[in-house]
Amino acid sequence: MRNILIVHAHPESRSLTSALKDLAVATLRQQGHDVLVSDLYAMGWKAVADEGDFTDIIAPERLSYVAESRHAFASKTQSPDIDAEQKKLLWADAVLFSFPLWWFGMPAILKGWFDRVFAFGFAYGVGKHGGERWGDRYGEGVLAGRRAMIIVPIGGRSPHYSDRGVNGSLDDVLWPIAHGTLFYPGFDVLPAFSVYQSDRMDEAGWQQVSKDFCDRLKNLFTTAPIPFRTQNGGHYDASQRLKPGLGTGEGGTRIHLVQPGDPVETVFGPAQRAGS
Amino acid sequence: MRNILIVHAHPESRSLTSALKDLAVATLRQQGHDVLVSDLYAMGWKAVADEGDFTDIIAPERLSYVAESRHAFASKTQSPDIDAEQKKLLWADAVLFSFPLWWFGMPAILKGWFDRVFAFGFAYGVGKHGGERWGDRYGEGVLAGRRAMIIVPIGGRSPHYSDRGVNGSLDDVLWPIAHGTLFYPGFDVLPAFSVYQSDRMDEAGWQQVSKDFCDRLKNLFTTAPIPFRTQNGGHYDASQRLKPGLGTGEGGTRIHLVQPGDPVETVFGPAQRAGS
Repeated sequence: MRNILIVHAHPESRSLTSALKDLAVATLRQQGHDVLVSDLYAMGWKAVADEGDFTDIIAPERLSYVAESRHAFASKTQSPDIDAEQKKLLWADAVLFSFPLWWFGMPAILKGWFDRVFAFGFAYGVGKHGGERWGDRYGEGVLAGRRAMIIVPIGGRSPHYSDRGVNGSLDDVLWPIAHGTLFYPGFDVLPAFSVYQSDRMDEAGWQQVSKDFCDRLKNLFTTAPIPFRTQNGGHYDASQRLKPGLGTGEGGTRIHLVQPGDPVETVFGPAQRAGS
Repeated sequence: MRNILIVHAHPESRSLTSALKDLAVATLRQQGHDVLVSDLYAMGWKAVADEGDFTDIIAPERLSYVAESRHAFASKTQSPDIDAEQKKLLWADAVLFSFPLWWFGMPAILKGWFDRVFAFGFAYGVGKHGGERWGDRYGEGVLAGRRAMIIVPIGGRSPHYSDRGVNGSLDDVLWPIAHGTLFYPGFDVLPAFSVYQSDRMDEAGWQQVSKDFCDRLKNLFTTAPIPFRTQNGGHYDASQRLKPGLGTGEGGTRIHLVQPGDPVETVFGPAQRAGS
């Protein structure tokens, strides 16, 4: 029995996105898990990162959000709402992020959750920086050992998001979130659960979607994560560029996925992480 | 002499991002252009899309943001702050988007500007949908003929964002914004102006950056846009997938750039758009 956090961002409680969130809560609790929900709209979550996020500002004459975040996290002077979300993340074994795709990204309220909760010392600025090492990130970090999954209803059609689709592949569209935001602080990131033409769902469609979704929930702790290469596993050079000979035959963001035949990563590899 | 809008998102008026915005205002005005600034933090911009964005809600019992946006735009019952930003966009010949890269994307306040201002009938849901045509988007649309440029200071280092860099290439990181958000409603999108290690800028660094930036501003109306393929120019099939034989040898999002030797687009091509 595990601890599961759902971070949910939709303004309407009767939307498809919210129905999937409700189904996740019920299904996971039925499986015996503890479930917490951060329903950002219902909480009236403060989306905008600003000086109000710190109760002990060190340089009020010129706000450096990064420097204040570092100080506030280290000195426990963050705004209490930020602190509460970080505690939930540390409590969780898995975190589901549930949101509709708006302009090929997250709704602003969820982006503001990351902007504010993913503090310096918590989600970035972790570990040794300099020389050949650029911190504990991409496979290592405070959130390592935890699983993350994106649940994303999409208004558009599946072929438009396929490998040659006009929007770019869904993997490329989600790259800044899955890799840059979730893998960065250490999450094992599962393949996203997406639903296309989400505003045209009939009863039969919902039956199929909810069945597929429950299968994904059942396998939450056994599904293989996306095999992103770890930063410090030996695949990147001192300039943090992928070493020659790796990622050949692939283009774009796919070069950052471990391929069959690649050298085993030396610090953290997906296989080791899967056992964590 | 043209009209230029700057949409700016930084909480500190003495930051590097804000200094670049100030430099843009001064330089462009000196060149004789009319410049308007939407300084989102200074305006206290409402970041969160919700029922407050509509003054004549058609289905209060179950909020569909898309349906309400469509009705509100068509019936001129949008929240006045949304209407004002749309009018600025229609006034502008070029729009600069000035923001720091936070978690590989925009600060929430700017994401919320797009979520709210890019309404149905204005930035999406434009043109005929169905059959072989999926609307006027990606090269056509209400904002066609206008130029957009992203100005983005970045805390990290340049090699980390290079073609094989650990973060993914900057082009891939910005894909959902440059292609999915700006090209979608019709903008000609210029290459981004990026500044790396933006929190470690010394006086000599600033001199170089400001010189490079002024060059970009001087060439705002002559720089070639990113050669994204237009949706309805003949390169995509009826499923909106790139036709066989195009984008070969490239991977990821780069397949969506027109390559030398590709067939000329039949509706809108970069060459025609450049003359608009």
